Amino acid sequence: MISSTSNGKVKEAAALARKARYRKETGLFVVEGPKMAAEIPPDQMESVFMTERFVREQRERGAEGAAVLEKLEAAPVRELVTEEVLRAMSDTQTPQGVLALARQRQWRLEEILEAAGAAHLLVLETLQDPGNLGTILRTGEGAGITGVIMNRETADIYSPKVVRSTMGAIFRVPFVYTDDLPHTLKRLKQAGVRLYAAHLKGTRCYDEESYLADTGFLIGNEARGLTEETASMADAYVRIPMEGQVESLNAAVAASILMYEVSRQRWKTAVRKM
Amino acid sequence: MISSTSNGKVKEAAALARKARYRKETGLFVVEGPKMAAEIPPDQMESVFMTERFVREQRERGAEGAAVLEKLEAAPVRELVTEEVLRAMSDTQTPQGVLALARQRQWRLEEILEAAGAAHLLVLETLQDPGNLGTILRTGEGAGITGVIMNRETADIYSPKVVRSTMGAIFRVPFVYTDDLPHTLKRLKQAGVRLYAAHLKGTRCYDEESYLADTGFLIGNEARGLTEETASMADAYVRIPMEGQVESLNAAVAASILMYEVSRQRWKTAVRKM
Repeated sequence: MISSTSNGKVKEAAALARKARYRKETGLFVVEGPKMAAEIPPDQMESVFMTERFVREQRERGAEGAAVLEKLEAAPVRELVTEEVLRAMSDTQTPQGVLALARQRQWRLEEILEAAGAAHLLVLETLQDPGNLGTILRTGEGAGITGVIMNRETADIYSPKVVRSTMGAIFRVPFVYTDDLPHTLKRLKQAGVRLYAAHLKGTRCYDEESYLADTGFLIGNEARGLTEETASMADAYVRIPMEGQVESLNAAVAASILMYEVSRQRWKTAVRKM
Repeated sequence: MISSTSNGKVKEAAALARKARYRKETGLFVVEGPKMAAEIPPDQMESVFMTERFVREQRERGAEGAAVLEKLEAAPVRELVTEEVLRAMSDTQTPQGVLALARQRQWRLEEILEAAGAAHLLVLETLQDPGNLGTILRTGEGAGITGVIMNRETADIYSPKVVRSTMGAIFRVPFVYTDDLPHTLKRLKQAGVRLYAAHLKGTRCYDEESYLADTGFLIGNEARGLTEETASMADAYVRIPMEGQVESLNAAVAASILMYEVSRQRWKTAVRKM
């Protein structure tokens, strides 16, 4: 049982929760709460820290709790910690009795492009709000996206706030960071992906294009939108019509409306019952 | 020039920024930043607090800054304050040089129902996250909603975080709180509004219904969804299809997808160029 907040493992978890650079150096990240921790794929699971109360509560929950404990106990390192220690490790005030360290998974652009079926990609340029990034992954999984591509200036997907707001999609939606966005966009175009920018310059409504073939959406920074350079690489500009005096939509909302239009067109065509 | 944080007006603004009960007692709320403050309708403007630097910067901006100052200077009470005082009044670390107090506007349900054109309403039951509420108003204005109806357990629309995230829609989208949601839902149904609940029980996709006539969507709490009682008052359940292992969408995202489907159907029918 770890009862001291100056324990090395406690300090490591606290640093991983707070420092993007330390996450990058170690290739690890923090996953909080039983639901998310139980979703960590076995090959990414590094260590699990639980309170005694959490273990007791899970046992009292019956089969469901037993399944959670079984998944967590498969971690190579397992430690009991006090409530105070868990709070010190965590990014939140109420870490719900369990915190895990997981290994980051790296996807390559080729893997994303070679996936079966028509591509449905989101390209994020300097998206800064962790809640927006998490929401895009969560909604994107629901809409059936095939990957997320981000420039380095986009928020860190491994920050605890992003991880939480993905609701587990971080373990299921392929994503990749690129150091050279223009080059990556060229590769997407060469691979046959049609790139759309949601832009005030758009002449067509977003639902007037067909998204049945390989599709990618360019989503820009919350305040400044897309850079000229990135916007200029779009094959088409589309508009989300806005009534009233609204100047723009929240980036995650705009992305969600676009992703669900793709999804909608693809069900209709496949006559697929979902 | 107010330079003391113990000044009565400073304390009042700080209390309005922090306490829902005090906002309710006084009928006032706090609006931060030049863009939002300049959007306060003249009949709701109560007082404006600006730093000297803010006034100087607006003058240096030319015509646009002059327009902002002109709107702010129409407030019955205008005060210069120090940067420190402004921070003490505000909910944020960077209040951008100006903070205003505005009078709350009360809408009646009848006004919302009597508005011209087909109704497009959002009914929020115990929606708790201020960011979600603000985003729903912002997206809703863009999608052309005609009103938002909330039960008392929904977040306070006048909290600074909600006000900020509406991006001004709080001054333009009609809304009303109800103490008796079941009774209000009955009145909506009597007025001919067809109520839809986004629900896992839904058999039809959200885009398989026609929303050209008077429409209202029931949106529930982020964690628990709609109560049985409220869900039972829906005329139809609709599903937003979800791929992967996603169990639900963020409440503001789900509402946005539904609102934009209404909007989309109504443009198509009106053959209206937006």
